[in-house]
Amino acid sequence: MENKFAIIGGDNRLVNLAKMLLEDGFEITTFALEKVPELQKFACSSLEETVAKSDIIVSSIPLSKDGTFVNAPLSNVKLSLEELHQKAKGKKMMAGKIPETIKQDETMEVYDFLEIEEYAILNAIATAEGAIQIAMEEYPKTLSGSNILVMGFGRIGKVLSKMLQGMGAKVFCEARKNEDLAYIQAYGYTPIHLKNLDENLGNFDIIFNNIPVLILDKKRLDLVKKEALIVDLASNPGGTDFEYAKQKEIKTIWALALPGKCAPISAAEYVRDTIYSIIERN
Amino acid sequence: MENKFAIIGGDNRLVNLAKMLLEDGFEITTFALEKVPELQKFACSSLEETVAKSDIIVSSIPLSKDGTFVNAPLSNVKLSLEELHQKAKGKKMMAGKIPETIKQDETMEVYDFLEIEEYAILNAIATAEGAIQIAMEEYPKTLSGSNILVMGFGRIGKVLSKMLQGMGAKVFCEARKNEDLAYIQAYGYTPIHLKNLDENLGNFDIIFNNIPVLILDKKRLDLVKKEALIVDLASNPGGTDFEYAKQKEIKTIWALALPGKCAPISAAEYVRDTIYSIIERN
Amino acid sequence: MENKFAIIGGDNRLVNLAKMLLEDGFEITTFALEKVPELQKFACSSLEETVAKSDIIVSSIPLSKDGTFVNAPLSNVKLSLEELHQKAKGKKMMAGKIPETIKQDETMEVYDFLEIEEYAILNAIATAEGAIQIAMEEYPKTLSGSNILVMGFGRIGKVLSKMLQGMGAKVFCEARKNEDLAYIQAYGYTPIHLKNLDENLGNFDIIFNNIPVLILDKKRLDLVKKEALIVDLASNPGGTDFEYAKQKEIKTIWALALPGKCAPISAAEYVRDTIYSIIERN
Amino acid sequence: MENKFAIIGGDNRLVNLAKMLLEDGFEITTFALEKVPELQKFACSSLEETVAKSDIIVSSIPLSKDGTFVNAPLSNVKLSLEELHQKAKGKKMMAGKIPETIKQDETMEVYDFLEIEEYAILNAIATAEGAIQIAMEEYPKTLSGSNILVMGFGRIGKVLSKMLQGMGAKVFCEARKNEDLAYIQAYGYTPIHLKNLDENLGNFDIIFNNIPVLILDKKRLDLVKKEALIVDLASNPGGTDFEYAKQKEIKTIWALALPGKCAPISAAEYVRDTIYSIIERN
Repeated sequence: MENKFAIIGGDNRLVNLAKMLLEDGFEITTFALEKVPELQKFACSSLEETVAKSDIIVSSIPLSKDGTFVNAPLSNVKLSLEELHQKAKGKKMMAGKIPETIKQDETMEVYDFLEIEEYAILNAIATAEGAIQIAMEEYPKTLSGSNILVMGFGRIGKVLSKMLQGMGAKVFCEARKNEDLAYIQAYGYTPIHLKNLDENLGNFDIIFNNIPVLILDKKRLDLVKKEALIVDLASNPGGTDFEYAKQKEIKTIWALALPGKCAPISAAEYVRDTIYSIIERN
Repeated sequence: MENKFAIIGGDNRLVNLAKMLLEDGFEITTFALEKVPELQKFACSSLEETVAKSDIIVSSIPLSKDGTFVNAPLSNVKLSLEELHQKAKGKKMMAGKIPETIKQDETMEVYDFLEIEEYAILNAIATAEGAIQIAMEEYPKTLSGSNILVMGFGRIGKVLSKMLQGMGAKVFCEARKNEDLAYIQAYGYTPIHLKNLDENLGNFDIIFNNIPVLILDKKRLDLVKKEALIVDLASNPGGTDFEYAKQKEIKTIWALALPGKCAPISAAEYVRDTIYSIIERN
Repeated sequence: MENKFAIIGGDNRLVNLAKMLLEDGFEITTFALEKVPELQKFACSSLEETVAKSDIIVSSIPLSKDGTFVNAPLSNVKLSLEELHQKAKGKKMMAGKIPETIKQDETMEVYDFLEIEEYAILNAIATAEGAIQIAMEEYPKTLSGSNILVMGFGRIGKVLSKMLQGMGAKVFCEARKNEDLAYIQAYGYTPIHLKNLDENLGNFDIIFNNIPVLILDKKRLDLVKKEALIVDLASNPGGTDFEYAKQKEIKTIWALALPGKCAPISAAEYVRDTIYSIIERN
Repeated sequence: MENKFAIIGGDNRLVNLAKMLLEDGFEITTFALEKVPELQKFACSSLEETVAKSDIIVSSIPLSKDGTFVNAPLSNVKLSLEELHQKAKGKKMMAGKIPETIKQDETMEVYDFLEIEEYAILNAIATAEGAIQIAMEEYPKTLSGSNILVMGFGRIGKVLSKMLQGMGAKVFCEARKNEDLAYIQAYGYTPIHLKNLDENLGNFDIIFNNIPVLILDKKRLDLVKKEALIVDLASNPGGTDFEYAKQKEIKTIWALALPGKCAPISAAEYVRDTIYSIIERN
């Protein structure tokens, strides 16, 4: 048996992935995706069967939202993580945010997409585009010519800054590490050291935040222009005091899971490409 | 009397313009904008009064949609072009798509925004951003890495190509004139001569059209990828056989008047800046 | 007879052109290029013979430097414009800066490269790169991060600004026309209206001039930083008071004919491509 | 005593640094720089005196070229590393490529510029520009429109790729790690995995190498275009079989120490900025 895939649970992204694998000539079976008509003929009636017919199990990103059941919005099946784990023993498994108990199962070969740098960078492309789309929808001026601050110069910050510059915005990047500030300068953005952030905050028309701590707190929000737009990309609990921003009538969008929403086909391609990279390395 | 403005009719763009003129210290009166509460105190009860109190009349872009009445969506007043013309005699007047009879009135100094190159270029920025926003909303992949065709290398084509390249797309530009093709090469896009268009059409993920003739006809639509997105920016009647595209299930968006929709404040700023340029020249 | 070329006089650019035409399968003869060993076997002993064997005469850019003789630095032949004209009657002729007497000869079909927009734009690419090379060689800091002024937003100004921005420079463009200033803004450079030039001149590290009048006169040079570099690309007499700049010890390079010097093969390709465009149009 | 600098040995870069420190109001003394007239009045007659009057010793990058004596091309003094070490005990010292014996001296606070990421990134800007300057000087076509390969996606590769793209080149980046390939895609370059390098090598007009192992060996050089230009930026022994390249008449430039050569003032500013960062952190 060679690279037969079991697609278990997941959202549209996994549906698209399934179709792409078929197009590339792979055999697939599916489980907990019974609401998707096009995948009907690949559906197995039991988890056992799905697993038995495959050598690679691909499941949801994240694998679970509640810590107990597999994330399967296109199914009525309630599949527990525990059951999946038991049935998947001895197999390769790929999904997102996989619990430690599964990761450490030595009978299995487990790959967590969210820990694979390649996947994270590809997702940053779609996240950056989604963030720009939101800014375009919500901000009543053009990005071109606007003063835009990008806070955090990680993967998303890097790609987002490049795109904003390409749109004609004046791009300022906040960072703390000297090496990041040096890269920011090298790429032609204006570096803003965290310690100088406050004195500059009043200049920005749009602020994108990627820092997952409360950086835009009350004190800083008091310094932000009233007409500014904040797009917070930081995962829960975000980097903005949303309540206070609302109170001050600063328009603030907390934007999560953008790749699946804004570029669902690309998001599936990133999963596919990462799977192929893993396979090839082995 | 020096640079007192009468704002007559028009949409949100003229409302924003009115506020900007006030902010810059100019005196204004308004007419046919009575649905806008913030402008109430500048409203005149008659056209005569408005005109009498001003030396520059600014009206809608376009001045009329039906050729008979002034375009005044924020008013219940039915003001005929003829009446406006009679009352405005002897004044400076600025609006969009002004009829020849008014333009040729030698008692007046008439400026048509749509014939002012500066205004057209500024609008191209907002149009290009609006077009990109639509593509992001409608296309299920990222622009980054996509093969994108821009047809027509006029003002919008130039700015749009630059932004798409800045977003990481692979940009192809269709043109007919050798000088345009030379610029396209100079700017780092791939030039496609109109005569070679057909053989390349199947490669594009997204097609933006700025050419105001039926260029994407049935024969060419047959060559376009089924998954492609067409964003047609050409004014009435557009450059696409929309019926046939629909029949072929090629997603097609006919996008007009983007600056006012996607960047209303910028759109008003362009009007303001153009007005100031005219004033300064005189 | 169909597209047989007579290459008459000219410098390295025409030598490279000759080789390219041969590679593309065309027949050529040469005259007044006898110092080029590789072209020996295509040489004709007389102008008559060269002309008789060809239907398109390609000669030097510019055709003459002194107004009397054909520009032929790779030859000992002294060929007068008058003689060339008499012998070329009835033929197609392509060269640069062709005198009116030849252009108006109705027995001939005459194309002046320097009047063909396509050629001028392609040359602007090589000129812009050459200008950047000179700036890199002469300026002791990186272009990245420097404040650079481009004066004149014609063909060279447009391409040069784009490249400088791409290198990470902060690009300011001087222009007079509102439409140029609008494009400058659209492309993400900082527009400087000529009337505001003086108050900004002290900020620039490097100044590129494309304006063919004395714009950097004594008064303005007094405003330029002592450490600044001026690269003047304007044809004779240039746009800088070179004497005064020298006196003030402001490093100034007057850079002409860059395509042939900095990118001789590209320069020949531009001639070739322009020739092919002319042929194709006919 | 607070931030008094002893500048000991070094080349033009340290001379420029000395001037910048003076401009910023710092006190300096110098030693082993006696050939520089402008620094005469800061010169000390003995190393002891220089050290005694300072709290931070700044020396050459690299500190030594032969492993025995301090690199001091602007001096006749033969100062051994050993002597400098003995005299500098108890002080802060900053230089490049400092021997382990000094680094591990616990009485001292030692900073090696070449191990400071910020410094390395800033230097990458000047190196990238220098590499582009060389390519412009040596390659007979424009970079714009050329197919250019950048091998190695470290600091220099990243900055160089961005600049080349900004110049209008078609940029291909070779890398091995999937995360690098993902970034390459995100930035809009064409990724080339090392394993696919050979089949693509024949397409490139210019090849920049940053990989410090023999990657362009005989076998690969056989695949390179004869007209191609190779610019090897890898430190000794370089990444190209230079002998074989010469034999094959492939033009190859081995370009080292570019910041000091191509942008001496910027190179000194990078040293200065790095020193200030170190001081500020303490």
